Amino acid sequence: MELLKGKKGIITGALNDKSIAWKVAERALAEGADIVLTNTALSLRMGPLQEFADAHGCKVIAADATNLEELAALVDGAMEHFGGPFDFVLHSIGMSPNVRKNKPYEALNYDFLNKTLDISALSFHKLLHTLYTKDALREWGSVVALTYIAAERTFVGYNDMADAKALLQSITRSFGAIYGPARHVRINTVSQSPTATTAGQGIAGMEDMLKYAERMSPLGNATADDCADYIVTLFSDYTRKVTMQNLYHDGGFSSVGLTAAEAATFQEEVR
Amino acid sequence: MELLKGKKGIITGALNDKSIAWKVAERALAEGADIVLTNTALSLRMGPLQEFADAHGCKVIAADATNLEELAALVDGAMEHFGGPFDFVLHSIGMSPNVRKNKPYEALNYDFLNKTLDISALSFHKLLHTLYTKDALREWGSVVALTYIAAERTFVGYNDMADAKALLQSITRSFGAIYGPARHVRINTVSQSPTATTAGQGIAGMEDMLKYAERMSPLGNATADDCADYIVTLFSDYTRKVTMQNLYHDGGFSSVGLTAAEAATFQEEVR
Amino acid sequence: MELLKGKKGIITGALNDKSIAWKVAERALAEGADIVLTNTALSLRMGPLQEFADAHGCKVIAADATNLEELAALVDGAMEHFGGPFDFVLHSIGMSPNVRKNKPYEALNYDFLNKTLDISALSFHKLLHTLYTKDALREWGSVVALTYIAAERTFVGYNDMADAKALLQSITRSFGAIYGPARHVRINTVSQSPTATTAGQGIAGMEDMLKYAERMSPLGNATADDCADYIVTLFSDYTRKVTMQNLYHDGGFSSVGLTAAEAATFQEEVR
Amino acid sequence: MELLKGKKGIITGALNDKSIAWKVAERALAEGADIVLTNTALSLRMGPLQEFADAHGCKVIAADATNLEELAALVDGAMEHFGGPFDFVLHSIGMSPNVRKNKPYEALNYDFLNKTLDISALSFHKLLHTLYTKDALREWGSVVALTYIAAERTFVGYNDMADAKALLQSITRSFGAIYGPARHVRINTVSQSPTATTAGQGIAGMEDMLKYAERMSPLGNATADDCADYIVTLFSDYTRKVTMQNLYHDGGFSSVGLTAAEAATFQEEVR
Repeated sequence: MELLKGKKGIITGALNDKSIAWKVAERALAEGADIVLTNTALSLRMGPLQEFADAHGCKVIAADATNLEELAALVDGAMEHFGGPFDFVLHSIGMSPNVRKNKPYEALNYDFLNKTLDISALSFHKLLHTLYTKDALREWGSVVALTYIAAERTFVGYNDMADAKALLQSITRSFGAIYGPARHVRINTVSQSPTATTAGQGIAGMEDMLKYAERMSPLGNATADDCADYIVTLFSDYTRKVTMQNLYHDGGFSSVGLTAAEAATFQEEVR
Repeated sequence: MELLKGKKGIITGALNDKSIAWKVAERALAEGADIVLTNTALSLRMGPLQEFADAHGCKVIAADATNLEELAALVDGAMEHFGGPFDFVLHSIGMSPNVRKNKPYEALNYDFLNKTLDISALSFHKLLHTLYTKDALREWGSVVALTYIAAERTFVGYNDMADAKALLQSITRSFGAIYGPARHVRINTVSQSPTATTAGQGIAGMEDMLKYAERMSPLGNATADDCADYIVTLFSDYTRKVTMQNLYHDGGFSSVGLTAAEAATFQEEVR
Repeated sequence: MELLKGKKGIITGALNDKSIAWKVAERALAEGADIVLTNTALSLRMGPLQEFADAHGCKVIAADATNLEELAALVDGAMEHFGGPFDFVLHSIGMSPNVRKNKPYEALNYDFLNKTLDISALSFHKLLHTLYTKDALREWGSVVALTYIAAERTFVGYNDMADAKALLQSITRSFGAIYGPARHVRINTVSQSPTATTAGQGIAGMEDMLKYAERMSPLGNATADDCADYIVTLFSDYTRKVTMQNLYHDGGFSSVGLTAAEAATFQEEVR
Repeated sequence: MELLKGKKGIITGALNDKSIAWKVAERALAEGADIVLTNTALSLRMGPLQEFADAHGCKVIAADATNLEELAALVDGAMEHFGGPFDFVLHSIGMSPNVRKNKPYEALNYDFLNKTLDISALSFHKLLHTLYTKDALREWGSVVALTYIAAERTFVGYNDMADAKALLQSITRSFGAIYGPARHVRINTVSQSPTATTAGQGIAGMEDMLKYAERMSPLGNATADDCADYIVTLFSDYTRKVTMQNLYHDGGFSSVGLTAAEAATFQEEVR
């Protein structure tokens, strides 16, 4: 398959081979795309992304996605690398200092909250603004950001990341309404099953959460590999008219109230 | 591209080359699929589907999708043709006698309403029941039904088709919760832009509706060809964990309250 | 309080003192309303509704809500009793022969399914049609139907009632768009917590379902009494501009993905 | 009526007699409540709120809702005034410097954006945090915040307020999941029709927007007075189990795709 033959794009947020973004990078390359990888300078030092890039002949550009100058340099660097505008971007960036420091939602540190929102949501506006201002995306380009259903329903422990994801999804709609008419660029979020990434490890009870979601998903949890498959369809020319959507990629979890598999755990309690 | 290489499926509801189902058939063939086409005996006599099938070496099996015996014969015939279970099904079936006979929603003919629901929604349950009972779909098979946003928001003139589509979408979820765990089959609806098909011509003010939707869709209306592109991704192995979803394929219409393009028509009124 | 002072209305579906409709009747009377009660002739013979009516000086009119003539007689009788048009109606009618006979969703009896839809959803259209045609509701009247979140998310065992409720909610929107401009009548559904009524007893695992919903509702399950309180606000003049809505009255269940209370049950499993 | 007899609460955001909050204050007083009014010191100097308070014997406490110390003083002052915990709070606070300065969404000033989010959304978290920490709300207390449907669908010109409202609604759910189990306090948003308030005047094309919404609302736009009626039901004991909901109070606008009234404007264009 060469679903992305001739297409070029930026993939953010790949830390290591457990990252969804890493899987998307692998999949995009396998589908014929040319990609630029980016992450913070710290993440690049900590993880093996440069090795991955070297092995696949990709360019890596360090950037802090909350910093407009670094985003400008990233987009300029990508345009220079690609010889002009490109086709797709993956936003896979999120972090909550409140989660990391175990601040409960009712007693958030507000400086931390501002960081959560800046890193996890406003970075997406800044990235889109940079792409838009520099006219860096080709006609019918596609931008995808990763999100989670906590934006719609509360999950214990997900804390202020829920609010950040709700804001991210709103930015998706707000910017999609502008980028669509202007340049036929589409912008969507993919609401992915809980996934055992390095980032996910920070969340309390992640293991239990994965099992619960598995029981409550008629097709089981979607993996990072599944997610990469799905995202390349959203970058391809097959999905040109899908925009401003939040697309659940979750084995059906979002449309479930109670499965037989979960109900079976109650009956066990009773016995 | 051969996105559906080695895949086999049934496509219902293709009347002529304006039909979304017809476009899906063309696209599925181009992507390497083997297909069986079906429609009512009357539609087959009225339209050019047999010629299309002959030209592409497809099998056609007449079936009334409200009739369990005819559905059984369809699925048996397809399994015989394919030499066993198959991979995908498109449900593109809908009709309202109330719309055709201009019965307003507040004064529906209830026999007609039962027909609207039977043809447009219960036919989907009957089809899924037949597929499930005969174990006619392979593991990770995919079923898609076409729907319209009138299931969520009222549109003047759409009448009892709105209720039929809401029922169709509920059947999608209800059966998806069963077919997923049992056989890893996914079931989704695609909520398509208003489309200038022969079926659509029956709806009063369709022309105005198309223009309104065009102005209110940041990427413009999705065409039947666009829809075919999208649907083949849902039949492919790239989307295996998407189930029980209603997927808007509408240029962004569903996420819009008011666009600049539509607002401009007010300002013209004012001048 | 006399929230419904001077208001008159019809309450359907009260079987006995566990029924939500019975609680609404009690509450409406306490708030100063004059009411007409109705149920099927069979339910009236089986249950104590006539005694209740006698004790409170209410009129009872037997009617099968799927039968247009009986609905006409009901509305005519109510208008005669009230001396003219009235103000509110509660639809609290639902039954699935498939649930009663343990037909699983993948193998529904289609005659039963038609009955489920007719009794639980189309009866609402027929009732609204009758009210509309006879101009039986006063300006700014209010109609409420009871529903359940299974219309949006699948719950094991809820079976074809999920589809019936989705259809009911669509009818609410479709008719609301007509009755609003015509007579300023509003139509809404209340999506209630699972409730231990006589009707609910037919559903397999109801006891477990109640406990699960309790753990997953930040305020706990809403009771039938709570529901009656809420519904009288919707009949009152305080909510005149709320229409075509599905209103969750469920202690927060609908906005929850996972509560601490539910997560605690996993941790117990682990220990 | 004395729907709020014996209840006490804080109402924020009343500027003048066009404000929704002003109408809520009037209505709450008429329903028997005792209230504390608050706004920024600047707004209090600019508007007639002190006169209103004096006329009705209410207390006014100036507070900047983005400032934790001022919020603490507000809540302490209210508890002192009421002689202990109270029952309800209205959050009616929102402002976007980007809208005021005509910064388009694709070129937001990010300092302004942070202010928009802080004033319009984070102020709600800070207020709830303060109430929670001081245990200032009685059991079964009720908190309502005003929002707008731009949080779900984009409206041209609404700009970054759409994102702020999406964030506000997420905070409502996130905090509701905590305050519910802890103290049986419910938290909801009311999504109100566009309303001709002084704040609304800042939004470009507000007049056209009001007309459009009127045509697209089967019951017409809800007014500020209508909204006040609705909100007092949410503060009353009749709605104790409603929480974490976004409640549309909009004449049906949110459930409409296209009304006959709006479609009629197209036909006029054609003629």
